[in-house]
Amino acid sequence: MTYQQKPSAVTTGPITGSRKVYSSPADRPDILVPFREIVLDLSAKEEPMRLYDCSGPYTESNAQIDLAAGLPPIRAPWLAKRGFAPAAARAVKPEDNGFVPADRLVPACPAAQTLLEGREGQLVTQYEFARAGIITEEMIYVAHRENLGRAAAHAEAEARVADGESFGAEIPAFVTPEFVRSEIARGRAIIPANINHPELEPVIIGRNFLVKINANIGNSAVTSGAAEEVEKLVWAIRWGGDTVMDLSTGRNIHNIRGWILRNSPVPIGTVPIYQALEKVGGDADKLDWEVFRDTLIEQAEQGVDYFTIHAGVRLAHVPLTAKRTTGIVSRGGSIMARWCLAHHKESFLYERFDEICDIMRKYDVSFSLGDGLRPGSNADANDAAQFAELETLGELTQIAWAKGCQVMIEGPGHVPMHKIKVNMEKQLRECGEAPFYTLGPLTTDIAPGYDHITSAIGAAMIGWFGTAMLCYVTPKEHLGLPNRDDVKTGVITYRIAAHAADLAKGHPSAKLRDDAISRARFEFRWEDQFNLGLDPDTARAYHDETLPKDAHKVAHFCSMCGPKFCSMKISQDIRADAERLAGMEAKSAEFLEGGAAIYVPAAE
Amino acid sequence: MTYQQKPSAVTTGPITGSRKVYSSPADRPDILVPFREIVLDLSAKEEPMRLYDCSGPYTESNAQIDLAAGLPPIRAPWLAKRGFAPAAARAVKPEDNGFVPADRLVPACPAAQTLLEGREGQLVTQYEFARAGIITEEMIYVAHRENLGRAAAHAEAEARVADGESFGAEIPAFVTPEFVRSEIARGRAIIPANINHPELEPVIIGRNFLVKINANIGNSAVTSGAAEEVEKLVWAIRWGGDTVMDLSTGRNIHNIRGWILRNSPVPIGTVPIYQALEKVGGDADKLDWEVFRDTLIEQAEQGVDYFTIHAGVRLAHVPLTAKRTTGIVSRGGSIMARWCLAHHKESFLYERFDEICDIMRKYDVSFSLGDGLRPGSNADANDAAQFAELETLGELTQIAWAKGCQVMIEGPGHVPMHKIKVNMEKQLRECGEAPFYTLGPLTTDIAPGYDHITSAIGAAMIGWFGTAMLCYVTPKEHLGLPNRDDVKTGVITYRIAAHAADLAKGHPSAKLRDDAISRARFEFRWEDQFNLGLDPDTARAYHDETLPKDAHKVAHFCSMCGPKFCSMKISQDIRADAERLAGMEAKSAEFLEGGAAIYVPAAE
Repeated sequence: MTYQQKPSAVTTGPITGSRKVYSSPADRPDILVPFREIVLDLSAKEEPMRLYDCSGPYTESNAQIDLAAGLPPIRAPWLAKRGFAPAAARAVKPEDNGFVPADRLVPACPAAQTLLEGREGQLVTQYEFARAGIITEEMIYVAHRENLGRAAAHAEAEARVADGESFGAEIPAFVTPEFVRSEIARGRAIIPANINHPELEPVIIGRNFLVKINANIGNSAVTSGAAEEVEKLVWAIRWGGDTVMDLSTGRNIHNIRGWILRNSPVPIGTVPIYQALEKVGGDADKLDWEVFRDTLIEQAEQGVDYFTIHAGVRLAHVPLTAKRTTGIVSRGGSIMARWCLAHHKESFLYERFDEICDIMRKYDVSFSLGDGLRPGSNADANDAAQFAELETLGELTQIAWAKGCQVMIEGPGHVPMHKIKVNMEKQLRECGEAPFYTLGPLTTDIAPGYDHITSAIGAAMIGWFGTAMLCYVTPKEHLGLPNRDDVKTGVITYRIAAHAADLAKGHPSAKLRDDAISRARFEFRWEDQFNLGLDPDTARAYHDETLPKDAHKVAHFCSMCGPKFCSMKISQDIRADAERLAGMEAKSAEFLEGGAAIYVPAAE
Repeated sequence: MTYQQKPSAVTTGPITGSRKVYSSPADRPDILVPFREIVLDLSAKEEPMRLYDCSGPYTESNAQIDLAAGLPPIRAPWLAKRGFAPAAARAVKPEDNGFVPADRLVPACPAAQTLLEGREGQLVTQYEFARAGIITEEMIYVAHRENLGRAAAHAEAEARVADGESFGAEIPAFVTPEFVRSEIARGRAIIPANINHPELEPVIIGRNFLVKINANIGNSAVTSGAAEEVEKLVWAIRWGGDTVMDLSTGRNIHNIRGWILRNSPVPIGTVPIYQALEKVGGDADKLDWEVFRDTLIEQAEQGVDYFTIHAGVRLAHVPLTAKRTTGIVSRGGSIMARWCLAHHKESFLYERFDEICDIMRKYDVSFSLGDGLRPGSNADANDAAQFAELETLGELTQIAWAKGCQVMIEGPGHVPMHKIKVNMEKQLRECGEAPFYTLGPLTTDIAPGYDHITSAIGAAMIGWFGTAMLCYVTPKEHLGLPNRDDVKTGVITYRIAAHAADLAKGHPSAKLRDDAISRARFEFRWEDQFNLGLDPDTARAYHDETLPKDAHKVAHFCSMCGPKFCSMKISQDIRADAERLAGMEAKSAEFLEGGAAIYVPAAE
């Protein structure tokens, strides 16, 4: 067993072969940033490999998790200094939990929460602090996190950056808190961090930082309790989800959201229009600004870190979708399109955008401006509807910034490879370089059951081109609800895409892990190879299927070639003959340049 | 059950939801080209969807397979006209089957085979025919196959080509036999087709054609019989393997290879140095030209369609690998490197290359010039060793062409995304546009257990850039031997990569399938959506996990959003309101241009 699971409890304990460590930036011993360390075989003579870790306290060796108490509010002392006045909470209404009967009500999470809200004229959001030239603790935290705890730049990191191709991004060899501040101030990065989510381990999303991934979770039709829903979060971040979107609908969602937030070390995103629709009985025509506004406040007070707001779906855009192969495929987009048509009116999200900004700023809820008109098929990629909405999102970005809000922009969808790059370029141009957050894109429509793969291809590419966060896709996309295995597969597939992008961009931290696992592979350190991988358990299990004996874990060959054919073994034998190789390189150059007919190794 | 499996038999019957059809090019009713057709729901009012089909007679509805008799020799009448004299077969030697004891000998396949060989001065290879301006039946066959049986070009196909980005490839909207001939004559495409493999359904490999994929198979440690080995072939081509490489080693390989060839409708490739090494007891130092030459003839006579020949690993290249992170990772490459160092001599494959060409020409065995120095890690990508070998392969390509042989070039390996394109560009330049055949490339090293995905990202990209064939990678790569599920996963993953590449290149046939499945998705034709996908069984099973009832197969929603939230349903409702939409598009343009404050739909 690689983890411990009790009834009504969540998965805890370290990922196989690793341990949680905490490290502090210079001069800030009070800021503890988590990492995952893999201790390598003694024969490797290498330092432990330190990895970025978004799994929270759940992966500590002796994790003591009490869901009712919530995670430690590590941001509380930082927030306390900022002078937010405690505010009176909005009263919970029956519709918040979908009018669930009392006997089926999931109780509210009892973890203590002091509600905070920002006042007019006060610095509240990370964007406002950054613009004012102030470095927050969140900024110091993410800088140390992005550096994997390194204390300074060095020549190797610079060489790795120089070796990459980042399409005009400006990835530094070493991330300073001041660099973080300047990126946020320019709108090029965000730290989604609601002031009512003190349990958050801050994470930065921007194209000059490590590419992040989001995993979606949602409630099941039959919910057995809060722990089951929190477990979905814990499981998704265990394997590498940097943020989690809670797409739940139906009964108990208010209370379950509370359990999730009090126990989440990662930013939580939601789509408030889903809950607003439920409150009006599922009839899009009955939606209005009042119910939407109330829902925003309800969720912001709970601590949601970012909201998807489909304010770019304007009335005039809807007819542009009429001839599409797959119409409108975003739920939020189709709800708003229907509302606009039914009322023959401009979207209330667009018309009330100023007011939405004012609400979100009060709690520092970041915008994720939704792509309600994203293409649902290759046939519809990059069409007039999609790009018209993107232009509107650019206009809204400027308004949100003027209001002091943090902003990222959602992107497609289904896009064939040759039409991906222009999406990134247009997004950067239209939206002032605000971070891009894409779903895939899926590069072909023909593989239901394998859309984690069709989309990982597009995700890796658009991540390389500059997308800051990739929304995962599971094998069940288009077919059904993902189960536990699907979520793990989706997260690991997207970690691959994000890492491939980081490598290609030349992120200074990315190649370290590839090199470490490649050395382990060449030196037949099987355990190290498993543990350095994204999924040690699966790698070990696959190896054991063919060569189950423990002795084979130190064998200098594997089952693919066997001892006689092992290229790495032969390669090592060649290298071991060091005397003979000495000087061969120079001789080889001579040979190639001089055209000598006979090559005599130096040692002869 | 979607297929029938008897003891000692192989998998037969159509893929769920489809049927085998045969179609002939104009004026050649004797040439029957197989396709797979999916009959769509009546409500679709669409013609059956016709797909490329490499699965052979095994997927016929009433497939009558007799492994001992072999497949029908469809090429026999074509070959008969070419005037090849029957030749005396080389006698089988005990070492051919690894000195297997008589009681464990797998008997030879009894299917009749008349050995053919080309004479000096006679046209033998497809390259020679093409250079002489002669269109062979194989060329007519592949032209019809690439066109999916269409009879002529049309505007839509031309539009799809124009919409793609093919990096200087010259993909035609309609493939004529003359175009095939000219591409082969220029060395830009090959039809691997040994004149002793009459059972072959010809396939063309070149960057102006559909991207192909190869699946590797190999014998198990304990072989229960020939049917088990043939089944590996049948299973791999069922899901879409265009060619299969038999990488078997050890006992009975000669006889098993005979069973595979007589029952293979796809080109079979091998790496003869593996068997040669076995014949000298596994000691690379003992290899010599005579045993290698004898092995080439042995396998060529059996009908192998292409040989991987690692003639580019020259003595002078070996020291270039000394400082690599993962040394030499190609089996063939490491065997030859070791041989060169042990003897302090130039590679006998390089020195005897003329003679190798003469042998391969006699049977029209195509070259797959091996990349023995491909990088085994991102750290080693695009290094001096890799590129030195590639330059040598370019030199050898010219020699092979001068000798009348067909040639393709093998490529890497492990390459981060930003270093992929230069591989394609350099290969085209150095090797005179001979088809490129790559393994992945894997875009990161950190995901053992998921290397079908790390490599599908690179494969899709390099396929788009111009690679003609992609060698699959299974989830077991680096860890163990793939089982039946792994082979299927690897093949389907690579069909995704190849198709994504075809779409991006603008191949006129590719987008048809995406559009058909997208229409099915939008119209809630669930069965059509499953059947049009790469793996109908898995798609259906995933759907049934959440919504198992048959009624849900016609439901106008799915389990992800449910009826209330179904964006496609809402989208359809919008479209259904056709009256209201009429004229909206024009009005919308007016609105956007004129800046009108109020938008009144035309129907009001």
